[in-house]
Amino acid sequence: METTMYDLKTTNPAMGRYEQEVLRNDLWKRPQLSVRDRSILTVAVLIARNQSAEMTNHFELALENGVTPTELSEIITHLSFYSGWANGTLAASVASDVFAKRGVTVDQLPGAIVEFLAIDEEIEASRVAIVDQTVGPIFQGLMDFTTNVLFRDLWLRPGLAPRDRSLATVAALVATSHFPQVSFHLNKAMENGTTETEAAEAITHLAFYAGWPNAMSSVAVAKAVFEKRRTPTS
Amino acid sequence: METTMYDLKTTNPAMGRYEQEVLRNDLWKRPQLSVRDRSILTVAVLIARNQSAEMTNHFELALENGVTPTELSEIITHLSFYSGWANGTLAASVASDVFAKRGVTVDQLPGAIVEFLAIDEEIEASRVAIVDQTVGPIFQGLMDFTTNVLFRDLWLRPGLAPRDRSLATVAALVATSHFPQVSFHLNKAMENGTTETEAAEAITHLAFYAGWPNAMSSVAVAKAVFEKRRTPTS
Amino acid sequence: METTMYDLKTTNPAMGRYEQEVLRNDLWKRPQLSVRDRSILTVAVLIARNQSAEMTNHFELALENGVTPTELSEIITHLSFYSGWANGTLAASVASDVFAKRGVTVDQLPGAIVEFLAIDEEIEASRVAIVDQTVGPIFQGLMDFTTNVLFRDLWLRPGLAPRDRSLATVAALVATSHFPQVSFHLNKAMENGTTETEAAEAITHLAFYAGWPNAMSSVAVAKAVFEKRRTPTS
Repeated sequence: METTMYDLKTTNPAMGRYEQEVLRNDLWKRPQLSVRDRSILTVAVLIARNQSAEMTNHFELALENGVTPTELSEIITHLSFYSGWANGTLAASVASDVFAKRGVTVDQLPGAIVEFLAIDEEIEASRVAIVDQTVGPIFQGLMDFTTNVLFRDLWLRPGLAPRDRSLATVAALVATSHFPQVSFHLNKAMENGTTETEAAEAITHLAFYAGWPNAMSSVAVAKAVFEKRRTPTS
Repeated sequence: METTMYDLKTTNPAMGRYEQEVLRNDLWKRPQLSVRDRSILTVAVLIARNQSAEMTNHFELALENGVTPTELSEIITHLSFYSGWANGTLAASVASDVFAKRGVTVDQLPGAIVEFLAIDEEIEASRVAIVDQTVGPIFQGLMDFTTNVLFRDLWLRPGLAPRDRSLATVAALVATSHFPQVSFHLNKAMENGTTETEAAEAITHLAFYAGWPNAMSSVAVAKAVFEKRRTPTS
Repeated sequence: METTMYDLKTTNPAMGRYEQEVLRNDLWKRPQLSVRDRSILTVAVLIARNQSAEMTNHFELALENGVTPTELSEIITHLSFYSGWANGTLAASVASDVFAKRGVTVDQLPGAIVEFLAIDEEIEASRVAIVDQTVGPIFQGLMDFTTNVLFRDLWLRPGLAPRDRSLATVAALVATSHFPQVSFHLNKAMENGTTETEAAEAITHLAFYAGWPNAMSSVAVAKAVFEKRRTPTS
């Protein structure tokens, strides 16, 4: 970020001013969301959109803001599935250089085999039931991968808290305009402990990093999620 | 563009032919839209999609087609907000090299602080009223940024005419499949002086640079905008 | 792919395990789709999303999996129109290096001028009739380009079988979330000889390379296409 700002001041004074006055001195200091959460959102956007030029700066900023190397590594692994495998390999390659520069060795990163978090079998059964009903046998392969690789493996890896995993997922979905899925995953993020204030502020933060149109389209989705969660089930 | 074409002829003869016969000798020469406007659309697509490999060629072509360094710089600043901050910083970095090569110095670029264009308070009040009604207090932060940074600052910077700012915005939205927002901004582009013929030709131009599916999906949106504007208000 | 996997094992052990166990030893070996078809889908995703970092690996893998240099070159030309011109020029530049390394010279690639496949005039007439009705005279330029450059030229180039051209198109559309167009082109892929099992498996494959959300959103579209094709016309 230091580097970026320096360049901007001498190459695009207007952007330099916005970065200093609006992003750095206002947005990132708003109390509704921690800088650690803001870094999770920002790196997720860059990974989801394959924006390697800013990855080094923001991976380093994330580590300074309290995201651990394990967590950053898990975010990359997670988004390999939610954004696409080539998004993951590019980010892993940039992260590898950042880790090397900071003396983080591979044994400090999450192992290939880990002890999974406990799964909530009731929630998982209801997810499978819905999918079975809507998808059907011709997509059995995709359904099996979804169950075995995503929900009984990836989401249960302990190196990234479910709340943070949800935040990264929501950011990636907003960044790539997957608004129907924003609804499911924003709700899941709130089940996992994200507050309404944090969720709204996440979308505000994403306006700057994922572009205004993605944020504005997410507002309507988020409002519907908030309202439904506030309504008592009769 | 020269460079690109040379390469294509020796690496992909079919693309070389299409580029010469269809893009260069037909599309870019169609009278419905000036080459300057076509360059604004094309650079906006590249910035919105982070396509740095073609930026140098098309930034240079834009300058040759009558887009000033100030205008190019403003387009980049503008799309930092509409496409995402990392799109802007990448484009600013490429533009910086192009400017340096041409001897354009930073004092020739738009300043950080500028005297704003006058705002139409009536239109702005009606925009705020609509947003207030649909968005609500939980997104007050996002709404404040939208008002203070976008509509009372960015859009009022004098280095890029509102019509050109609208063209760049529409191109970026089409390039990233934000069709609901294409409607709002295409209408704004026409309020700002873009004719129906120019708007239709812009979408035709974007078919080549943003891909056929984005253009075809924009046609329906544009037709609805055209029709509504033709209908006299009773 | 060898290179990628080696890197992943030492930089992100979790991704290294998924790549070996899930992608390489499971997905790519599933019998529902040939490795050649899987390579067509994968390179189409990379081209459509401008993901150059993985292009060299996957262009080489495609050639090893039976995609010919002519076919790869045609896929790039084809997606220049469906994804955008700059996507094509970037891919053509990477392919040029891959071809050079393997001693493939330009005379082995498809010529600029080729003898076209026969066109089905009945199908083409019905396509034009639908477009004429929905689009109208203001977009005559775009309609003429669509007819003359796409359907009476690009799609008739003999270097890539219509079925494979369709597969690449569908993959590019799924990769960039163009779900309305997935419907048209998936149907066309099946007209061109893709089976239901292959189509479903293509979407399963794309889950990994275009991200889970794009695959899941495509499932509903594909199911509707399958159902409509199964229903006998009365």
